[in-house]
Amino acid sequence: MRKMAVIGYGGMGSWHCSSIKNELSDILQVKGVYDIRQERLEAAMKEGLYTYSSIGEILADDEIELVTIATPNDSHKPIAIKALNAGKNVVTEKPATMSAADYEEIIEASLKNGRILTTHQNRRWDRDFNIVKNIYDNKTIGDIYMIESRVQGSRQVLHGWRGSAVNGGGMVYDWGVHLIDQMMWMIKSPVKEVYADLFYIFTDEVDDNFKAILRFENGISALIEVSMNCFILHPRWHISASDGTAVINDWDCNGKMVALNGDSTMAWEEKIVYTAAGPTRSMAPRPIETTKEIPLPTVNTHWSDFYKNVFDAIDGKAELVVKPEEILAVLRVMDAIFESGKTGKSISV
Amino acid sequence: MRKMAVIGYGGMGSWHCSSIKNELSDILQVKGVYDIRQERLEAAMKEGLYTYSSIGEILADDEIELVTIATPNDSHKPIAIKALNAGKNVVTEKPATMSAADYEEIIEASLKNGRILTTHQNRRWDRDFNIVKNIYDNKTIGDIYMIESRVQGSRQVLHGWRGSAVNGGGMVYDWGVHLIDQMMWMIKSPVKEVYADLFYIFTDEVDDNFKAILRFENGISALIEVSMNCFILHPRWHISASDGTAVINDWDCNGKMVALNGDSTMAWEEKIVYTAAGPTRSMAPRPIETTKEIPLPTVNTHWSDFYKNVFDAIDGKAELVVKPEEILAVLRVMDAIFESGKTGKSISV
Repeated sequence: MRKMAVIGYGGMGSWHCSSIKNELSDILQVKGVYDIRQERLEAAMKEGLYTYSSIGEILADDEIELVTIATPNDSHKPIAIKALNAGKNVVTEKPATMSAADYEEIIEASLKNGRILTTHQNRRWDRDFNIVKNIYDNKTIGDIYMIESRVQGSRQVLHGWRGSAVNGGGMVYDWGVHLIDQMMWMIKSPVKEVYADLFYIFTDEVDDNFKAILRFENGISALIEVSMNCFILHPRWHISASDGTAVINDWDCNGKMVALNGDSTMAWEEKIVYTAAGPTRSMAPRPIETTKEIPLPTVNTHWSDFYKNVFDAIDGKAELVVKPEEILAVLRVMDAIFESGKTGKSISV
Repeated sequence: MRKMAVIGYGGMGSWHCSSIKNELSDILQVKGVYDIRQERLEAAMKEGLYTYSSIGEILADDEIELVTIATPNDSHKPIAIKALNAGKNVVTEKPATMSAADYEEIIEASLKNGRILTTHQNRRWDRDFNIVKNIYDNKTIGDIYMIESRVQGSRQVLHGWRGSAVNGGGMVYDWGVHLIDQMMWMIKSPVKEVYADLFYIFTDEVDDNFKAILRFENGISALIEVSMNCFILHPRWHISASDGTAVINDWDCNGKMVALNGDSTMAWEEKIVYTAAGPTRSMAPRPIETTKEIPLPTVNTHWSDFYKNVFDAIDGKAELVVKPEEILAVLRVMDAIFESGKTGKSISV
């Protein structure tokens, strides 16, 4: 049985504890947790968790191989460096840090101490994303040239520290980091240029809506959007490829692909079409028989593979899936998004 | 009865003739047309139209007050300048020219000769657009901060000269000009910055798919997209405002608005929601009773008002609706879109 501790027992910290208990209890145990807030320690005790009296006590516990840091974003760096220097392997919640420069210091501590460093980019294991990755990798509808990835809601409230700038709140840090990480991990080509519009609708402090376009070196254009003020949602994914289109509507992965049925030069009515809005020939609707509907591929994915991979990497049995250099590249893109939002111009990465 | 002539009897030229006959025959008559192609002149004769033997013959015809130029885009400029210098009022098809610099020369000729100059931005009279403009002007769902305007099809073919770079083909010139003109006319704030990704999927010569973001000085972010390779369409319009969202799905103006129902701080379940893809609190679905659905406004709009306004402007009875300075501003944004596509960076306008 491998043993780990969780620092920060808030929303995500408690989720790590319960998910590990539910899904990984045969191989992994959260021995205990620490939080600076007494009421959270009491909540942990109620769940039967051991509560450490300090971070120092965790780092001095020889049974603890791995520390997961689920504190507000601004505190990941000092805790991660301290834990690595104490010889622990480290998982941070996302975003690892609030800037690429900060993360470089953690990488340094990881290299110096020869310990595993990674970030809980759990959404690499999301089903919707893995369907998209499958279509991308297999070129099911040809070469993808434009992708839209959106997460939208209308809650209009940033909970707790997620509304605070100094703690690293806002939607770029909260959801953006996932959507950017998924996109970059799938496309595996460097991001060349970033353009972003950030909005501050419910608070002046942090972005609560944003739209960003990442231009990849291989030519792909990826739109990433997160909204806390959207009452009629776009699909979760919209994918334009040379031979067809794929859409995933929601978290339950309802959606479909539509592609050309046979020869793209197939003859059909070419007369100008008088839409309700006037004449158009370029936008004349395509006859249904020239297209075919294809169901989305089936994928198998388990979140628990994240922790399994971390321990396999600790044991030298597998390559780490969420690599520090990838996390750093995502943070550089996020730096550029904030810079683009501030200057109103695109930023080269 | 006012009399005009049409130069260029292709798809749009013949559409002007038949539409004027159908909708404006009580006040306006297309006396005749000219085209450089013999087969098009024959087609015009079959429609009972007089066919001029040259542009010179039109310009020498004292009965002709107005000339509509519906030739390929690269030829608008020399013909327009010639017509203005001959004392005619001029309507050009869109885009007026292939660059802002070219258009400035036409404006000069219009001012020198004291004649009306305008462009057939007929889609300012589209019903879908006027619904959006109504919502924008009346702040029906609060202040709009993000707008998406898309025209998508899957024809994959650029007809005739629309596939030719030298003639000003491609989707930015063909459809982009409408969507940009609508957006700028509605928002009435200068465009500060433009970012665009242009794609050349079916031809290396002209863009057949593009995505552009216009950032307005008043803070609004507008996404404009035209696709010739989209098999699962986005809605025609998606509008994010402070108090709600509006969507128009199609040319027939199916769609709706959804807005907050009463107090935005209305209490509701705030616990983390475990979506199929993991926990989220910020994106927890809003209970249906906290929102209300509002039907789209009814608008009245008639394309024929375009020509009525041109003649009212000639008579000094009304301000021109499609003003040369607006056309010039749109062309500057289009210049920036092409520059952004080429450089991969955003461009200040």
